[in-house]
Amino acid sequence: MQESRSAFDEAVALEPLGAGRFRGRTHPGYANFVGPFGGTTAAQCLAAVLAHPERIGDPVALTVNYAAAVADGEFEVLARPARTNRSTQHWFVELLQGGQTVITATALTAVRRETFAATEAPVPDVPRPGDVPRAAERPRVEWVNRYELRFIDAGLPSEWNGEDAGQSRTRLWARDDPPRPLDFLSLTAMSDIFFPRIWRRRALFVPLGTISMTVYFHAGEAQLKETATGHLLGQAQGQGFRAGYFDQTAQLWNEAGVLLATTHQVVYFKE
Amino acid sequence: MQESRSAFDEAVALEPLGAGRFRGRTHPGYANFVGPFGGTTAAQCLAAVLAHPERIGDPVALTVNYAAAVADGEFEVLARPARTNRSTQHWFVELLQGGQTVITATALTAVRRETFAATEAPVPDVPRPGDVPRAAERPRVEWVNRYELRFIDAGLPSEWNGEDAGQSRTRLWARDDPPRPLDFLSLTAMSDIFFPRIWRRRALFVPLGTISMTVYFHAGEAQLKETATGHLLGQAQGQGFRAGYFDQTAQLWNEAGVLLATTHQVVYFKE
Repeated sequence: MQESRSAFDEAVALEPLGAGRFRGRTHPGYANFVGPFGGTTAAQCLAAVLAHPERIGDPVALTVNYAAAVADGEFEVLARPARTNRSTQHWFVELLQGGQTVITATALTAVRRETFAATEAPVPDVPRPGDVPRAAERPRVEWVNRYELRFIDAGLPSEWNGEDAGQSRTRLWARDDPPRPLDFLSLTAMSDIFFPRIWRRRALFVPLGTISMTVYFHAGEAQLKETATGHLLGQAQGQGFRAGYFDQTAQLWNEAGVLLATTHQVVYFKE
Repeated sequence: MQESRSAFDEAVALEPLGAGRFRGRTHPGYANFVGPFGGTTAAQCLAAVLAHPERIGDPVALTVNYAAAVADGEFEVLARPARTNRSTQHWFVELLQGGQTVITATALTAVRRETFAATEAPVPDVPRPGDVPRAAERPRVEWVNRYELRFIDAGLPSEWNGEDAGQSRTRLWARDDPPRPLDFLSLTAMSDIFFPRIWRRRALFVPLGTISMTVYFHAGEAQLKETATGHLLGQAQGQGFRAGYFDQTAQLWNEAGVLLATTHQVVYFKE
Protein backbone atom coordinates (compact mmCIF):
# COMPACT_ATOMS: atom_id res chain seq x y z
CA MET A 1 0.00 0.00 0.00
CA GLN A 2 1.17 3.52 -0.78
CA GLU A 3 0.92 6.10 1.96
CA SER A 4 -0.69 8.55 -0.47
CA ARG A 5 -3.68 6.35 -1.24
CA SER A 6 -6.95 7.75 0.04
CA ALA A 7 -9.48 5.71 1.97
CA PHE A 8 -11.49 5.39 -1.25
CA ASP A 9 -8.50 3.97 -3.13
CA GLU A 10 -8.04 1.47 -0.33
CA ALA A 11 -11.73 0.57 -0.33
CA VAL A 12 -11.88 -0.26 -4.03
CA ALA A 13 -8.53 -2.07 -4.22
CA LEU A 14 -8.97 -5.68 -5.37
CA GLU A 15 -6.45 -8.50 -5.46
CA PRO A 16 -6.68 -10.57 -8.66
CA LEU A 17 -7.10 -14.31 -8.06
CA GLY A 18 -7.28 -15.24 -11.76
CA ALA A 19 -10.16 -16.28 -14.05
CA GLY A 20 -12.11 -13.09 -13.32
CA ARG A 21 -12.04 -13.61 -9.54
CA PHE A 22 -10.87 -10.90 -7.18
CA ARG A 23 -10.50 -10.59 -3.42
CA GLY A 24 -11.55 -7.41 -1.66
CA ARG A 25 -12.57 -6.32 1.79
CA THR A 26 -14.95 -3.84 3.34
CA HIS A 27 -13.28 -0.67 4.59
CA PRO A 28 -13.98 0.62 8.12
CA GLY A 29 -13.93 4.18 6.75
CA TYR A 30 -17.06 3.39 4.71
CA ALA A 31 -19.07 1.64 7.43
CA ASN A 32 -22.83 2.12 7.31
CA PHE A 33 -25.46 1.21 9.93
CA VAL A 34 -25.02 -2.47 9.07
CA GLY A 35 -22.12 -3.45 6.81
CA PRO A 36 -20.62 -1.03 4.29
CA PHE A 37 -21.98 1.97 2.33
CA GLY A 38 -23.72 0.58 -0.75
CA GLY A 39 -21.94 3.06 -3.01
CA THR A 40 -18.57 1.53 -2.17
CA THR A 41 -19.96 -1.95 -2.77
CA ALA A 42 -21.20 -0.87 -6.21
CA ALA A 43 -17.77 0.62 -6.95
CA GLN A 44 -16.10 -2.65 -5.92
CA CYS A 45 -18.31 -4.56 -8.39
CA LEU A 46 -17.36 -2.16 -11.17
CA ALA A 47 -13.70 -2.33 -10.12
CA ALA A 48 -13.71 -6.07 -10.85
CA VAL A 49 -15.00 -5.39 -14.37
CA LEU A 50 -12.48 -2.60 -15.00
CA ALA A 51 -9.61 -4.78 -13.72
CA HIS A 52 -10.63 -7.79 -15.83
CA PRO A 53 -7.93 -8.50 -18.46
CA GLU A 54 -10.52 -9.02 -21.22
CA ARG A 55 -12.42 -5.79 -20.64
CA ILE A 56 -12.97 -3.43 -23.55
CA GLY A 57 -14.18 0.15 -23.26
CA ASP A 58 -15.54 2.31 -20.47
CA PRO A 59 -18.63 1.77 -18.34
CA VAL A 60 -21.96 2.84 -19.84
CA ALA A 61 -24.43 1.10 -17.50
CA LEU A 62 -24.20 -0.69 -14.17
CA THR A 63 -26.96 -2.37 -12.16
CA VAL A 64 -26.12 -3.60 -8.67
CA ASN A 65 -28.58 -5.73 -6.70
CA TYR A 66 -28.11 -5.86 -2.94
CA ALA A 67 -29.23 -9.44 -2.37
CA ALA A 68 -28.10 -9.70 1.25
CA ALA A 69 -26.23 -7.62 3.81
CA VAL A 70 -22.50 -7.47 3.08
CA ALA A 71 -20.70 -8.57 6.27
CA ASP A 72 -17.65 -6.61 7.40
CA GLY A 73 -14.49 -8.31 6.20
CA GLU A 74 -13.28 -10.13 3.08
CA PHE A 75 -15.28 -10.98 -0.01
CA GLU A 76 -14.74 -12.34 -3.50
CA VAL A 77 -15.99 -10.66 -6.66
CA LEU A 78 -16.45 -12.67 -9.82
CA ALA A 79 -16.71 -10.76 -13.12
CA ARG A 80 -17.63 -12.68 -16.26
CA PRO A 81 -17.97 -11.24 -19.79
CA ALA A 82 -21.29 -12.76 -20.87
CA ARG A 83 -21.08 -11.32 -24.37
CA THR A 84 -18.29 -9.47 -26.17
CA ASN A 85 -19.15 -7.61 -29.35
CA ARG A 86 -16.91 -5.44 -31.52
CA SER A 87 -17.21 -2.35 -29.34
CA THR A 88 -19.53 -3.37 -26.48
CA GLN A 89 -19.28 -5.94 -23.73
CA HIS A 90 -21.89 -7.24 -21.27
CA TRP A 91 -20.88 -8.43 -17.82
CA PHE A 92 -22.30 -10.59 -15.06
CA VAL A 93 -20.84 -9.77 -11.65
CA GLU A 94 -21.32 -11.59 -8.37
CA LEU A 95 -19.95 -10.70 -4.94
CA LEU A 96 -19.70 -13.65 -2.56
CA GLN A 97 -19.01 -14.17 1.11
CA GLY A 98 -18.67 -17.65 2.58
CA GLY A 99 -19.67 -19.12 -0.76
CA GLN A 100 -23.03 -17.26 -0.70
CA THR A 101 -24.07 -14.62 -3.23
CA VAL A 102 -24.56 -11.27 -1.50
CA ILE A 103 -24.54 -8.98 -4.56
CA THR A 104 -25.54 -9.61 -8.16
CA ALA A 105 -24.74 -7.09 -10.86
CA THR A 106 -24.65 -6.54 -14.58
CA ALA A 107 -22.56 -4.01 -16.44
CA LEU A 108 -22.06 -2.73 -19.96
CA THR A 109 -18.72 -1.40 -21.11
CA ALA A 110 -18.24 0.14 -24.54
CA VAL A 111 -15.75 1.92 -26.74
CA ARG A 112 -17.42 5.30 -27.15
CA ARG A 113 -17.10 7.76 -30.01
CA GLU A 114 -18.09 11.41 -30.19
CA THR A 115 -21.61 12.05 -31.51
CA PHE A 116 -24.41 14.55 -31.04
CA ALA A 117 -24.43 15.54 -27.36
CA ALA A 118 -27.02 17.35 -25.26
CA THR A 119 -28.09 17.55 -21.65
CA GLU A 120 -31.83 17.60 -21.29
CA ALA A 121 -32.07 17.17 -17.51
CA PRO A 122 -32.14 20.84 -16.50
CA VAL A 123 -29.21 21.85 -14.31
CA PRO A 124 -30.81 23.25 -11.14
CA ASP A 125 -30.23 26.94 -10.55
CA VAL A 126 -28.42 26.76 -7.21
CA PRO A 127 -25.73 28.61 -5.25
CA ARG A 128 -22.09 27.69 -5.90
CA PRO A 129 -20.40 25.17 -3.58
CA GLY A 130 -18.45 27.90 -1.76
CA ASP A 131 -21.72 29.63 -0.87
CA VAL A 132 -23.32 26.58 0.73
CA PRO A 133 -22.15 25.66 4.24
CA ARG A 134 -20.73 22.22 4.79
CA ALA A 135 -23.04 19.88 6.72
CA ALA A 136 -21.87 20.27 10.29
CA GLU A 137 -24.01 17.68 12.03
CA ARG A 138 -22.10 14.75 13.41
CA PRO A 139 -23.14 11.83 11.16
CA ARG A 140 -24.62 8.63 12.56
CA VAL A 141 -22.52 6.54 10.19
CA GLU A 142 -18.83 6.58 9.38
CA TRP A 143 -18.98 6.70 5.54
CA VAL A 144 -20.53 10.17 5.59
CA ASN A 145 -17.21 11.46 6.98
CA ARG A 146 -15.54 10.41 3.71
CA TYR A 147 -17.49 13.07 1.82
CA GLU A 148 -17.73 16.81 1.86
CA LEU A 149 -21.49 17.37 1.72
CA ARG A 150 -23.11 20.76 1.23
CA PHE A 151 -26.89 20.51 1.30
CA ILE A 152 -28.47 23.20 -0.84
CA ASP A 153 -31.93 22.25 0.38
CA ALA A 154 -33.63 19.43 2.20
CA GLY A 155 -30.89 17.65 4.10
CA LEU A 156 -31.85 15.13 6.75
CA PRO A 157 -34.96 16.28 8.64
CA SER A 158 -34.07 18.55 11.55
CA GLU A 159 -36.80 16.85 13.57
CA TRP A 160 -37.93 13.25 13.17
CA ASN A 161 -41.52 14.18 13.88
CA GLY A 162 -43.33 12.06 11.31
CA GLU A 163 -44.71 15.04 9.39
CA ASP A 164 -45.21 14.14 5.73
CA ALA A 165 -43.16 16.70 3.77
CA GLY A 166 -45.28 16.02 0.66
CA GLN A 167 -42.17 15.61 -1.47
CA SER A 168 -38.64 14.36 -1.08
CA ARG A 169 -36.33 16.31 -3.37
CA THR A 170 -32.80 17.02 -2.14
CA ARG A 171 -30.04 18.97 -3.88
CA LEU A 172 -26.48 19.01 -2.65
CA TRP A 173 -22.86 19.57 -3.57
CA ALA A 174 -20.62 16.61 -2.80
CA ARG A 175 -17.06 15.43 -3.26
CA ASP A 176 -14.61 13.02 -1.70
CA ASP A 177 -12.91 14.14 1.51
CA PRO A 178 -9.98 14.46 1.04
CA PRO A 179 -10.63 15.64 -2.54
CA ARG A 180 -9.68 12.99 -5.11
CA PRO A 181 -9.82 13.25 -8.93
CA LEU A 182 -13.14 11.81 -10.10
CA ASP A 183 -13.02 8.42 -11.80
CA PHE A 184 -15.66 5.87 -12.79
CA LEU A 185 -15.42 4.20 -9.38
CA SER A 186 -15.93 7.33 -7.28
CA LEU A 187 -18.72 8.47 -9.63
CA THR A 188 -20.40 5.10 -9.02
CA ALA A 189 -20.09 5.45 -5.26
CA MET A 190 -21.43 9.01 -5.35
CA SER A 191 -24.50 7.78 -7.24
CA ASP A 192 -25.56 6.33 -3.87
CA ILE A 193 -24.77 9.43 -1.84
CA PHE A 194 -28.39 10.55 -1.44
CA PHE A 195 -29.85 9.41 1.83
CA PRO A 196 -33.07 7.43 1.41
CA ARG A 197 -35.88 9.64 0.16
CA ILE A 198 -38.44 8.22 2.55
CA TRP A 199 -36.60 9.72 5.52
CA ARG A 200 -36.88 13.13 3.91
CA ARG A 201 -40.48 12.58 2.84
CA ARG A 202 -41.84 11.25 6.13
CA ALA A 203 -39.40 12.57 8.74
CA LEU A 204 -39.52 9.05 10.17
CA PHE A 205 -36.40 7.00 10.72
CA VAL A 206 -37.87 3.77 9.28
CA PRO A 207 -35.67 0.70 8.72
CA LEU A 208 -34.72 0.31 5.08
CA GLY A 209 -32.11 -0.81 2.58
CA THR A 210 -31.33 -0.21 -1.10
CA ILE A 211 -32.22 -3.34 -3.07
CA SER A 212 -31.13 -2.36 -6.57
CA MET A 213 -29.29 0.61 -8.06
CA THR A 214 -28.65 1.43 -11.71
CA VAL A 215 -26.09 3.97 -12.91
CA TYR A 216 -25.89 5.31 -16.48
CA PHE A 217 -22.54 6.92 -17.21
CA HIS A 218 -22.80 10.00 -19.39
CA ALA A 219 -19.23 10.98 -18.56
CA GLY A 220 -16.27 9.58 -20.42
CA GLU A 221 -12.61 10.08 -19.54
CA ALA A 222 -12.68 13.66 -20.87
CA GLN A 223 -15.55 14.70 -18.59
CA LEU A 224 -13.96 12.97 -15.60
CA LYS A 225 -10.72 14.83 -16.24
CA GLU A 226 -12.53 18.17 -16.60
CA THR A 227 -14.30 17.52 -13.31
CA ALA A 228 -11.09 16.59 -11.49
CA THR A 229 -11.49 17.27 -7.75
CA GLY A 230 -14.43 19.63 -8.23
CA HIS A 231 -17.76 19.22 -6.51
CA LEU A 232 -20.63 17.25 -8.01
CA LEU A 233 -24.11 18.71 -7.96
CA GLY A 234 -26.58 15.98 -7.06
CA GLN A 235 -30.36 16.00 -7.18
CA ALA A 236 -32.52 13.11 -6.00
CA GLN A 237 -36.27 12.62 -5.69
CA GLY A 238 -38.64 9.77 -4.93
CA GLN A 239 -41.26 8.85 -7.53
CA GLY A 240 -43.43 6.18 -5.94
CA PHE A 241 -43.78 4.60 -2.50
CA ARG A 242 -45.91 1.48 -2.05
CA ALA A 243 -46.03 -1.89 -0.32
CA GLY A 244 -42.58 -1.82 1.23
CA TYR A 245 -40.60 -0.34 -1.66
CA PHE A 246 -39.94 3.08 -3.13
CA ASP A 247 -37.77 4.31 -5.96
CA GLN A 248 -35.62 7.39 -6.27
CA THR A 249 -34.24 9.00 -9.38
CA ALA A 250 -31.13 11.18 -9.35
CA GLN A 251 -28.74 13.16 -11.52
CA LEU A 252 -25.13 14.19 -11.00
CA TRP A 253 -23.58 17.18 -12.79
CA ASN A 254 -20.15 18.75 -12.39
CA GLU A 255 -19.55 22.38 -11.46
CA ALA A 256 -19.59 23.34 -15.15
CA GLY A 257 -23.10 21.85 -15.53
CA VAL A 258 -22.03 18.77 -17.48
CA LEU A 259 -24.27 15.77 -16.77
CA LEU A 260 -21.97 12.99 -15.50
CA ALA A 261 -24.42 10.27 -14.48
CA THR A 262 -28.10 9.53 -14.06
CA THR A 263 -29.04 6.94 -11.48
CA HIS A 264 -32.07 5.22 -10.04
CA GLN A 265 -32.61 2.94 -7.14
CA VAL A 266 -35.33 0.95 -5.44
CA VAL A 267 -35.29 0.78 -1.68
CA TYR A 268 -36.99 -1.60 0.75
CA PHE A 269 -38.64 0.04 3.76
CA LYS A 270 -40.65 -1.14 6.75
CA GLU A 271 -44.00 0.42 7.80
CA MET B 1 -52.78 -23.44 -27.65
CA GLN B 2 -56.16 -21.98 -26.84
CA GLU B 3 -57.96 -20.07 -29.57
CA SER B 4 -58.69 -17.25 -27.13
CA ARG B 5 -55.06 -16.46 -26.42
CA SER B 6 -53.96 -13.05 -27.62
CA ALA B 7 -50.77 -12.46 -29.59
CA PHE B 8 -49.18 -11.22 -26.36
CA ASP B 9 -50.09 -14.44 -24.52
CA GLU B 10 -48.56 -16.39 -27.37
CA ALA B 11 -45.43 -14.22 -27.36
CA VAL B 12 -44.67 -14.74 -23.66
CA ALA B 13 -45.56 -18.46 -23.55
CA LEU B 14 -42.56 -20.54 -22.46
CA GLU B 15 -42.12 -24.30 -22.44
CA PRO B 16 -40.39 -25.56 -19.27
CA LEU B 17 -37.33 -27.72 -19.95
CA GLY B 18 -36.47 -28.28 -16.27
CA ALA B 19 -33.78 -26.85 -13.97
CA GLY B 20 -34.86 -23.27 -14.62
CA ARG B 21 -34.55 -23.62 -18.41
CA PHE B 22 -37.38 -22.62 -20.72
CA ARG B 23 -37.87 -22.64 -24.47
CA GLY B 24 -39.57 -19.69 -26.16
CA ARG B 25 -39.74 -18.15 -29.60
CA THR B 26 -40.02 -14.71 -31.08
CA HIS B 27 -43.52 -13.81 -32.29
CA PRO B 28 -44.05 -12.36 -35.77
CA GLY B 29 -46.73 -10.06 -34.35
CA TYR B 30 -44.03 -8.28 -32.31
CA ALA B 31 -41.42 -7.90 -35.05
CA ASN B 32 -39.27 -4.77 -34.88
CA PHE B 33 -36.87 -3.36 -37.51
CA VAL B 34 -34.41 -6.15 -36.71
CA GLY B 35 -35.59 -9.00 -34.51
CA PRO B 36 -38.37 -8.57 -31.94
CA PHE B 37 -39.70 -5.60 -29.92
CA GLY B 38 -37.46 -5.29 -26.83
CA GLY B 39 -40.49 -5.01 -24.57
CA THR B 40 -41.59 -8.53 -25.45
CA THR B 41 -38.05 -9.82 -24.90
CA ALA B 42 -38.01 -8.23 -21.43
CA ALA B 43 -41.39 -9.82 -20.69
CA GLN B 44 -40.07 -13.22 -21.80
CA CYS B 45 -37.16 -12.89 -19.35
CA LEU B 46 -39.55 -12.04 -16.53
CA ALA B 47 -41.87 -14.88 -17.62
CA ALA B 48 -39.06 -17.37 -16.95
CA VAL B 49 -38.69 -16.01 -13.41
CA LEU B 50 -42.43 -16.05 -12.75
CA ALA B 51 -42.72 -19.62 -14.09
CA HIS B 52 -39.79 -20.90 -12.03
CA PRO B 53 -41.03 -23.44 -9.45
CA GLU B 54 -38.90 -21.89 -6.67
CA ARG B 55 -40.05 -18.32 -7.18
CA ILE B 56 -41.41 -16.39 -4.22
CA GLY B 57 -43.28 -13.09 -4.43
CA ASP B 58 -44.01 -10.60 -7.16
CA PRO B 59 -41.57 -8.61 -9.28
CA VAL B 60 -40.15 -5.45 -7.73
CA ALA B 61 -37.23 -4.72 -10.09
CA LEU B 62 -36.06 -6.02 -13.45
CA THR B 63 -33.00 -5.04 -15.46
CA VAL B 64 -32.66 -6.41 -18.99
CA ASN B 65 -29.46 -5.95 -20.98
CA TYR B 66 -29.70 -6.33 -24.75
CA ALA B 67 -26.28 -7.86 -25.37
CA ALA B 68 -26.88 -8.81 -29.00
CA ALA B 69 -29.71 -8.77 -31.54
CA VAL B 70 -32.29 -11.49 -30.84
CA ALA B 71 -32.69 -13.49 -34.05
CA ASP B 72 -36.19 -14.44 -35.18
CA GLY B 73 -37.01 -17.96 -34.02
CA GLU B 74 -36.43 -20.11 -30.96
CA PHE B 75 -34.44 -19.27 -27.87
CA GLU B 76 -33.76 -20.63 -24.42
CA VAL B 77 -34.16 -18.64 -21.20
CA LEU B 78 -32.33 -19.70 -18.09
CA ALA B 79 -33.54 -18.30 -14.74
CA ARG B 80 -31.47 -18.94 -11.63
CA PRO B 81 -32.29 -17.79 -8.09
CA ALA B 82 -28.94 -16.34 -6.99
CA ARG B 83 -30.14 -15.60 -3.47
CA THR B 84 -33.34 -16.48 -1.67
CA ASN B 85 -34.14 -14.66 1.56
CA ARG B 86 -37.23 -14.95 3.73
CA SER B 87 -39.36 -12.62 1.62
CA THR B 88 -37.08 -11.51 -1.23
CA GLN B 89 -35.35 -13.36 -4.04
CA HIS B 90 -32.66 -12.22 -6.49
CA TRP B 91 -32.48 -13.71 -9.98
CA PHE B 92 -29.94 -14.04 -12.75
CA VAL B 93 -31.55 -14.52 -16.17
CA GLU B 94 -29.90 -15.32 -19.47
CA LEU B 95 -31.49 -15.68 -22.90
CA LEU B 96 -29.48 -17.79 -25.33
CA GLN B 97 -29.58 -18.57 -29.03
CA GLY B 98 -27.23 -21.11 -30.55
CA GLY B 99 -25.43 -21.39 -27.22
CA GLN B 100 -24.59 -17.65 -27.22
CA THR B 101 -25.86 -15.18 -24.64
CA VAL B 102 -28.04 -12.56 -26.31
CA ILE B 103 -29.74 -11.10 -23.21
CA THR B 104 -28.56 -10.85 -19.59
CA ALA B 105 -30.96 -9.81 -16.87
CA THR B 106 -31.40 -9.58 -13.13
CA ALA B 107 -34.67 -9.49 -11.25
CA LEU B 108 -35.92 -9.07 -7.71
CA THR B 109 -39.12 -10.70 -6.56
CA ALA B 110 -40.57 -10.10 -3.11
CA VAL B 111 -43.53 -10.81 -0.91
CA ARG B 112 -44.94 -7.32 -0.42
CA ARG B 113 -46.96 -5.99 2.48
CA GLU B 114 -49.03 -2.82 2.73
CA THR B 115 -47.15 0.21 4.08
CA PHE B 116 -47.17 3.97 3.68
CA ALA B 117 -47.94 4.72 0.03
CA ALA B 118 -47.57 7.88 -2.02
CA THR B 119 -47.03 8.89 -5.61
CA GLU B 120 -44.58 11.72 -5.93
CA ALA B 121 -44.13 11.66 -9.70
CA PRO B 122 -46.84 14.18 -10.64
CA VAL B 123 -49.57 12.71 -12.85
CA PRO B 124 -49.57 14.88 -15.97
CA ASP B 125 -52.72 16.91 -16.50
CA VAL B 126 -53.80 15.49 -19.85
CA PRO B 127 -57.00 14.79 -21.79
CA ARG B 128 -58.73 11.43 -21.19
CA PRO B 129 -57.99 8.54 -23.57
CA GLY B 130 -61.35 8.93 -25.34
CA ASP B 131 -60.48 12.54 -26.18
CA VAL B 132 -57.15 11.74 -27.82
CA PRO B 133 -57.26 10.33 -31.35
CA ARG B 134 -55.66 6.97 -31.98
CA ALA B 135 -52.40 7.16 -33.95
CA ALA B 136 -53.53 6.59 -37.52
CA GLU B 137 -50.20 6.50 -39.30
CA ARG B 138 -49.28 3.13 -40.72
CA PRO B 139 -46.38 1.98 -38.52
CA ARG B 140 -43.01 1.00 -39.99
CA VAL B 141 -42.80 -2.00 -37.67
CA GLU B 142 -45.30 -4.75 -36.89
CA TRP B 143 -45.24 -4.62 -33.07
CA VAL B 144 -46.79 -1.16 -33.02
CA ASN B 145 -49.99 -2.76 -34.41
CA ARG B 146 -50.28 -4.78 -31.18
CA TYR B 147 -50.95 -1.59 -29.21
CA GLU B 148 -53.59 1.08 -29.18
CA LEU B 149 -51.49 4.24 -29.00
CA ARG B 150 -52.94 7.70 -28.44
CA PHE B 151 -50.24 10.37 -28.49
CA ILE B 152 -51.18 13.30 -26.27
CA ASP B 153 -48.18 15.26 -27.51
CA ALA B 154 -44.95 14.71 -29.36
CA GLY B 155 -45.45 11.51 -31.30
CA LEU B 156 -42.98 10.59 -34.00
CA PRO B 157 -41.78 13.70 -35.86
CA SER B 158 -44.11 14.59 -38.72
CA GLU B 159 -41.04 15.55 -40.76
CA TRP B 160 -37.59 14.00 -40.42
CA ASN B 161 -35.90 17.32 -41.09
CA GLY B 162 -33.09 17.21 -38.53
CA GLU B 163 -34.37 20.19 -36.54
CA ASP B 164 -33.33 19.88 -32.90
CA ALA B 165 -36.58 20.03 -30.91
CA GLY B 166 -34.64 21.10 -27.80
CA GLN B 167 -36.40 18.48 -25.68
CA SER B 168 -37.81 15.02 -26.13
CA ARG B 169 -40.78 14.53 -23.82
CA THR B 170 -43.68 12.41 -25.07
CA ARG B 171 -46.93 11.60 -23.32
CA LEU B 172 -49.36 8.99 -24.56
CA TRP B 173 -52.16 6.64 -23.65
CA ALA B 174 -51.46 3.01 -24.50
CA ARG B 175 -52.95 -0.43 -24.10
CA ASP B 176 -52.80 -3.84 -25.72
CA ASP B 177 -54.78 -4.30 -28.92
CA PRO B 178 -56.97 -6.28 -28.47
CA PRO B 179 -57.38 -5.07 -24.87
CA ARG B 180 -56.02 -7.60 -22.36
CA PRO B 181 -56.08 -7.38 -18.54
CA LEU B 182 -52.80 -5.89 -17.37
CA ASP B 183 -50.33 -8.27 -15.72
CA PHE B 184 -46.66 -8.01 -14.77
CA LEU B 185 -45.61 -9.24 -18.21
CA SER B 186 -47.61 -6.74 -20.26
CA LEU B 187 -46.60 -3.95 -17.86
CA THR B 188 -42.96 -4.92 -18.51
CA ALA B 189 -43.47 -4.85 -22.27
CA MET B 190 -45.22 -1.48 -22.10
CA SER B 191 -42.25 -0.05 -20.22
CA ASP B 192 -40.50 -0.15 -23.59
CA ILE B 193 -43.37 1.36 -25.58
CA PHE B 194 -41.78 4.80 -25.94
CA PHE B 195 -39.99 5.20 -29.22
CA PRO B 196 -36.36 6.29 -28.80
CA ARG B 197 -36.12 9.84 -27.51
CA ILE B 198 -33.39 10.86 -29.90
CA TRP B 199 -35.76 10.50 -32.85
CA ARG B 200 -38.10 12.96 -31.17
CA ARG B 201 -35.28 15.26 -30.08
CA ARG B 202 -33.42 15.45 -33.40
CA ALA B 203 -36.06 14.55 -35.99
CA LEU B 204 -33.37 12.34 -37.47
CA PHE B 205 -33.90 8.65 -38.10
CA VAL B 206 -30.51 7.58 -36.70
CA PRO B 207 -29.67 3.88 -36.22
CA LEU B 208 -29.98 2.84 -32.57
CA GLY B 209 -30.86 0.11 -30.14
CA THR B 210 -31.80 -0.14 -26.45
CA ILE B 211 -28.85 -1.58 -24.53
CA SER B 212 -30.27 -1.82 -21.02
CA MET B 213 -33.70 -1.25 -19.48
CA THR B 214 -34.71 -1.25 -15.82
CA VAL B 215 -38.30 -1.49 -14.60
CA TYR B 216 -39.40 -0.81 -11.00
CA PHE B 217 -42.83 -2.25 -10.29
CA HIS B 218 -44.92 -0.04 -8.04
CA ALA B 219 -48.05 -2.04 -8.89
CA GLY B 220 -48.95 -5.21 -7.07
CA GLU B 221 -51.77 -7.60 -7.96
CA ALA B 222 -54.39 -5.19 -6.55
CA GLN B 223 -53.28 -2.31 -8.80
CA LEU B 224 -53.06 -4.59 -11.83
CA LYS B 225 -56.60 -5.80 -11.17
CA GLU B 226 -57.89 -2.22 -10.74
CA THR B 227 -56.26 -1.27 -14.04
CA ALA B 228 -57.71 -4.27 -15.89
CA THR B 229 -57.99 -3.45 -19.61
CA GLY B 230 -57.79 0.31 -19.07
CA HIS B 231 -55.28 2.56 -20.76
CA LEU B 232 -51.89 3.35 -19.28
CA LEU B 233 -50.65 6.92 -19.28
CA GLY B 234 -46.99 6.98 -20.22
CA GLN B 235 -44.48 9.81 -20.08
CA ALA B 236 -40.90 9.52 -21.29
CA GLN B 237 -38.04 11.99 -21.58
CA GLY B 238 -34.34 11.87 -22.37
CA GLN B 239 -31.89 13.18 -19.77
CA GLY B 240 -28.48 13.05 -21.39
CA PHE B 241 -27.08 12.33 -24.86
CA ARG B 242 -23.34 11.87 -25.35
CA ALA B 243 -20.75 9.73 -27.14
CA GLY B 244 -23.12 7.23 -28.71
CA TYR B 245 -25.52 6.69 -25.81
CA PHE B 246 -28.50 8.44 -24.28
CA ASP B 247 -30.83 7.58 -21.45
CA GLN B 248 -34.56 8.03 -21.10
CA THR B 249 -36.67 8.01 -17.97
CA ALA B 250 -40.36 7.13 -17.99
CA GLN B 251 -43.40 6.62 -15.79
CA LEU B 252 -46.58 4.62 -16.33
CA TRP B 253 -49.83 5.43 -14.48
CA ASN B 254 -53.29 3.91 -14.88
CA GLU B 255 -56.41 5.91 -15.76
CA ALA B 256 -57.06 6.50 -12.05
CA GLY B 257 -53.61 8.12 -11.68
CA VAL B 258 -52.01 5.24 -9.79
CA LEU B 259 -48.28 4.92 -10.54
CA LEU B 260 -47.74 1.38 -11.86
CA ALA B 261 -44.09 1.42 -12.93
CA THR B 262 -41.10 3.69 -13.33
CA THR B 263 -38.57 2.73 -15.95
CA HIS B 264 -35.27 3.86 -17.40
CA GLN B 265 -33.24 2.80 -20.35
CA VAL B 266 -29.96 3.54 -22.04
CA VAL B 267 -29.88 3.47 -25.82
CA TYR B 268 -27.01 3.20 -28.28
CA PHE B 269 -27.15 5.58 -31.25
CA LYS B 270 -24.98 6.34 -34.22
CA GLU B 271 -23.92 9.89 -35.21
